Formats: sequence, C-alpha cells, structure tokens
Amino acid sequence: MTGRPSLPATYEPIGALPVESLRQFCFDALVRTELTGSDAAIAVDALSTTDCWGVFTHGIKALRGYLRRLYGGGLNPHGRPNIVAEGGGWATVDGDSSLGMVTSAFAMRTAIDKARKTGIGYVGVRNSCHFGAAGYYAWLAAEAGFIGLSMANDIPSVSAPGSRGAIIGSNPLAYAIPAGRHRPMILDMSIATVAGGKVAAANERGEPIPLSWLVDADGRPTDDASSYPASSTLTPAAGHKGYGIGLFIEAMSGVLSGAATTWRVGSWMTSDSHLPTRHGAAFLAVDCAAIAGVHEFGSHMDRLIDEIHGASTADGVERIYVPGEIEWEKYDAAVRHGVSFPTDVIASMREAADMSGLRLESYFS
Amino acid sequence: MTGRPSLPATYEPIGALPVESLRQFCFDALVRTELTGSDAAIAVDALSTTDCWGVFTHGIKALRGYLRRLYGGGLNPHGRPNIVAEGGGWATVDGDSSLGMVTSAFAMRTAIDKARKTGIGYVGVRNSCHFGAAGYYAWLAAEAGFIGLSMANDIPSVSAPGSRGAIIGSNPLAYAIPAGRHRPMILDMSIATVAGGKVAAANERGEPIPLSWLVDADGRPTDDASSYPASSTLTPAAGHKGYGIGLFIEAMSGVLSGAATTWRVGSWMTSDSHLPTRHGAAFLAVDCAAIAGVHEFGSHMDRLIDEIHGASTADGVERIYVPGEIEWEKYDAAVRHGVSFPTDVIASMREAADMSGLRLESYFS
Repeated sequence: MTGRPSLPATYEPIGALPVESLRQFCFDALVRTELTGSDAAIAVDALSTTDCWGVFTHGIKALRGYLRRLYGGGLNPHGRPNIVAEGGGWATVDGDSSLGMVTSAFAMRTAIDKARKTGIGYVGVRNSCHFGAAGYYAWLAAEAGFIGLSMANDIPSVSAPGSRGAIIGSNPLAYAIPAGRHRPMILDMSIATVAGGKVAAANERGEPIPLSWLVDADGRPTDDASSYPASSTLTPAAGHKGYGIGLFIEAMSGVLSGAATTWRVGSWMTSDSHLPTRHGAAFLAVDCAAIAGVHEFGSHMDRLIDEIHGASTADGVERIYVPGEIEWEKYDAAVRHGVSFPTDVIASMREAADMSGLRLESYFS
Repeated sequence: MTGRPSLPATYEPIGALPVESLRQFCFDALVRTELTGSDAAIAVDALSTTDCWGVFTHGIKALRGYLRRLYGGGLNPHGRPNIVAEGGGWATVDGDSSLGMVTSAFAMRTAIDKARKTGIGYVGVRNSCHFGAAGYYAWLAAEAGFIGLSMANDIPSVSAPGSRGAIIGSNPLAYAIPAGRHRPMILDMSIATVAGGKVAAANERGEPIPLSWLVDADGRPTDDASSYPASSTLTPAAGHKGYGIGLFIEAMSGVLSGAATTWRVGSWMTSDSHLPTRHGAAFLAVDCAAIAGVHEFGSHMDRLIDEIHGASTADGVERIYVPGEIEWEKYDAAVRHGVSFPTDVIASMREAADMSGLRLESYFS
C-alpha cells in the first residue's frame, strides 16, 4: 500500500482497502456479539481470504447477515460444534447453531484428522448455517497437504429439468488439490447455471439474459431478468448434470448428516433471525501424500498444470487458466495493494458497522 | 418374452433381444479369448446391465473393441488386478492390463470392504482400460447398501475455456445412492456438453447444432457438426464447471493412483491393440447405514424423492424424474421384454461374433 484511501460516505466505488484493516474491522464487529476471539478469528480468516480471492459475494459482504442472526439468536455466539457420532474415517458434527464458518472449519479439521489415520475422512454437519465460500474449507485441507472437498445444502432456489419452480438449493461444491511448485487448484461452484446476483446485475443494466439462465412461472425459459426472483427460478448448470450433482450434495450434506434438507432449510438472509437455519454440509479430506507419495503427487500435478499452460489457446485468448489460478492472482494483488470492493459490499459493511456501533471510517483512514 | 425375434442379416432395427441370450453371447465371446469364466461373468453383468438401462453406447456395443484388444495383447486375458499399496481406508490397485470391467469391479469391492471398516473407502486404479459405464460400479456399491462414486480418466477429447483443442478427457463421473422404498438414485455423466455420438447423429441428419457444443480449429464456437472430430473439439459442460470437474477426476483417477494422465492415456478404440492404454480410475464407497442408520438414511432419501415427484411440473411436462429413474424404467422393460437395440449396436455385435467365430443368429433365433 502506498497511502491508504479514505472511505467516502456515499456508496461510490472507493480505492483499495488494506487487508489487515478489513480483518480488524470484521474481528471487532464479531466479538461485540459475544463470539470468542478464537471463533471470531476463524470467521475473519474465512471472509477475508474469500475477499482476497475476489469472491465478493461470499466475503465480508455477508458479515451483516451473520451479525443479524448472532444478535437475533438464530446463531448462538456461545455455540460449540461437537462430534456426536464417529468411526475410523468419519464423523457427524452438530454445529450447535454456532457461526457456519466456526462449525465448518472444525468439521474440515476433523476430516483431516480422520484422513491422517485412514487415508480419507468424511465429516457430515448438521445444525449449521451459511458457511461463506465452500472453497475456503477445501483450501484449509490443501494448505495441510490434503485434497479437500466441501459442499453444503441450502433452501431451494434452482429448478429441475421439467419443474415449474425451485426444487433444490444452489448447493455449493468446492475442491482444492495441492500441487508442487504451483499453488493448489481450487474450484468453487454452485450447481446453478449462473448466480442470482448475475441476473440482478443484468436487470439493473436493463439487459436481456440468455434463455438458459431462468425458467418463468410456468417452467419455460425466459430472458426477462426483471422477473427474478419474484416469478422466475434459476436453472441447473448443464441441465440434468447440475441437477444431479445438486442431489448428490443434498444426500452427502443433508441426508447423511441428519441435517434439514430442501424446504426445511432456513434462508440465512430472509428467514426469521431468531430461528436456526439448520443447514447441512459435508467435508472430505484425502491424504494424497500417504496414497501417492508427496513428491510424486506434487510433481505429477505440476506436470498436468504445465501441460495446460503450454497448450494452444483460442484466437484472442492470452492463456488457459487452471481452476483457482485467477483467484490466486487476485489474492496476491490484494495482499500487496489491498482489496477494491464494489459499492454493494461497502454499503453492506457500513450497515454491519452501524449494527456493531463501530465507525467504519476509523478502520480505513 | 412372447416369442423371440429372429436377427436379420442386414443392419436394420430388429425386435427386442432377450437379456439372457445377450448375456450368453457376450460370455461365449469373452471366454474364447481365454478370459476365465468368472472374469467373463463380471464383464457380462456390466455390459448387459448397461444395455438394460438403455445406455447403448457403453454396453455390448463395446464388446468388439474389448475383443480386439484381448486378441491383440493390449488387454491381458490372464491379467489379475491386485492391491499394490493400501491403508485403513484406501488402496491402490494395479489392473495388470486385465479387462477394465474386471479391474473396476475388483476395485469397487475393495472400496466397499474399506468402507465397511472405516466408514468411507477410496480405491485408485492404474493400468486399467476403458471400463464401460461408470454408473455400473457406483450401482455395485448401492446394491451392497453403500453410496458409490466412480470416475475415470481418458485421452483428451474436451476443450478448456480458451483452448484451441482438447485438453482433458470426457472423464466420466457416476454416483449411486441407496434409498428405502425407491430404487437407488444413479447419475452417470461425462464432463462434455454432449457426447461425440450426438454430434455425429446431427451430422448424419444434416442438422446444425447449438453453438455451445463444439469449438472449431481456432477455438471458436461452431455449429458445423460435419467438422467433428477432424477439426473441432467437444466443449466442457457449463464451461469452467465441467472443465474443473474434469480436472478433479483426472487428479483422483490418474494422479492419485499413479496412472497415465491426459495424452499419455491410450485410446481404447483407436490406439494400437497390442499396447495397454494405462487408464486410471477411482472408486469411493460410503457406509451410509453406519453413518446415518440404514432406516433413517433410506426414509430420508425416500422423502426427498417423494417431494420431487410431488413438485409442480412445467407446462407440457408429465413428471419430474430423479437421476436414474428413466434408466430403471428401461431396465424393468428390458428384463421383461428384452432389449431393442439401435442398428449400430447390432452391427457391432455382428463384428464381435465374426471375431469370435460365433454365429450371432444362433443366440437370437
């Protein structure tokens, strides 16, 4: 950072905000809800890492919503995730309505512990809430040298082929795979064709959208972005493939863990903040070093990545990326120069500051 | 069956063929290559089950190609898949160039054994070949009461976003999830937008195809089906999502198992039949009964399926299917009435019969 920008009172785009200041603000807001410092630190790391990757929909923008539930009682700042059942390579974790990030980080660490013993670990989670970006927990595994998978269910917002309305949540799925010289590959996706936010953005710009993004109230394709979400529904990515993967995630995250499924899951944004949302989630870790040898695995992944980097590009395309590579470029820039947020995130941070009795300007001036 | 149809000498569509006759023909052809009866029976079950599901591209149509490699030496009829490394919840299996179905069924049974002990089992496979339909091995797990996942790599045939040619195989992925009253959910998909066979069929009919299916020699979208496969490449389903899932499959099937990856994998159809193809594969089994309780899991899955069946359908749509349901309907009809093959399968069976010195008519008259 060569000079920190001051934060404007309006919701205009502003300059880059230093990551440390962002983390401090997030931490201070969370501990004011009676969350312990160690739990707050877990959430801070999840949200700020996500923002550094440039995934602004799932970073500090979500803090406001989490604070509302922490103050409302639907999230319990004193909740303690705990293992309610386990075997050699698996565990079921009850989140005790603690913050989704706290429960999920605990669950992934448990999956890694299991994988250390048996080679592969599965942890199912119930009584959780929105957990931010799935990719963060997969990354926790990769950081420890394991292949990580994370997924979660949610209240339905995506149609099935042939359905009139929503059948299944946008159910995020993420993986992270360690390499050798290269950074871990990370993919974080939802099973919807596009995120609802992308439809809303097209609507704000008054643009029609491709017919593949939404179905209308009769279940027919529509290019009218203004119909969403009141009278249209997101479609599953690649039709039956996205729908099918969504159901797998529902089974692994919701059914296997004994969590709420489909319409029994609460909306972390719109449902009564006094009530728990009862989200489910699932975390898997695979000990690639034990199975394939740490050097063999890393160098084979490097060779795969190098091969893709060396492949011929389409006309007008500079390079072919592997999953997560764009996010790592953004991450490095964010750590060096700070994070440049879009206006909607700044507006949300301002509301989070107001709820917490904090002055946002004091962190970024 | 109320009377068996006779098989025409031409490649015209014919009536339904009884499943038992199909199995006998397939068995006799395989044991003539010196494959043992028990190995042949494994392949017969995989191929005939796949045909009963109506997945004709991956059933007995493939027998001809397997026979060619068994006679050529690239597949070893005396090969014995064996565990070369293992831990509590995982194993690496060397296929010893035995038939892909023999190695894959052995590997899934090993994954189930591991899962029985630790809750979840992973088995990576190297020195395998094309294994038919991924869904069959996932189904083996579900039949035993486990959640099953199977996947494999292949020689590249699918582009990456921004690439000029193929980067990754069509890498199949399948799951099967047991239910209670309902049949297991089964999804079997490739990571390509559509199968190459669908492009070829459009070309035969002289129809243009959607711009999303192929990229041309310069990496640009094309609707010219006649360009495939000489000068165009299949696209990944849902762009970066299909590409990203394809790389996960490559890591789990190829890198983790020490198999060949991407261009080092041989083509089971076109490469020298004297040489092994060195495909990789991966199989996972999850003991849902141990983790969630067999009745709890089954009744929760039933509730999920019932909910989807009860949901509102789009205009003109009779019902919403869960993954595998259409295949189970076809399966039941096939067992009762026989399998009605398209002409390309009959032609392939005829060649397989010729290679084996068998008279196809003697099985179906």
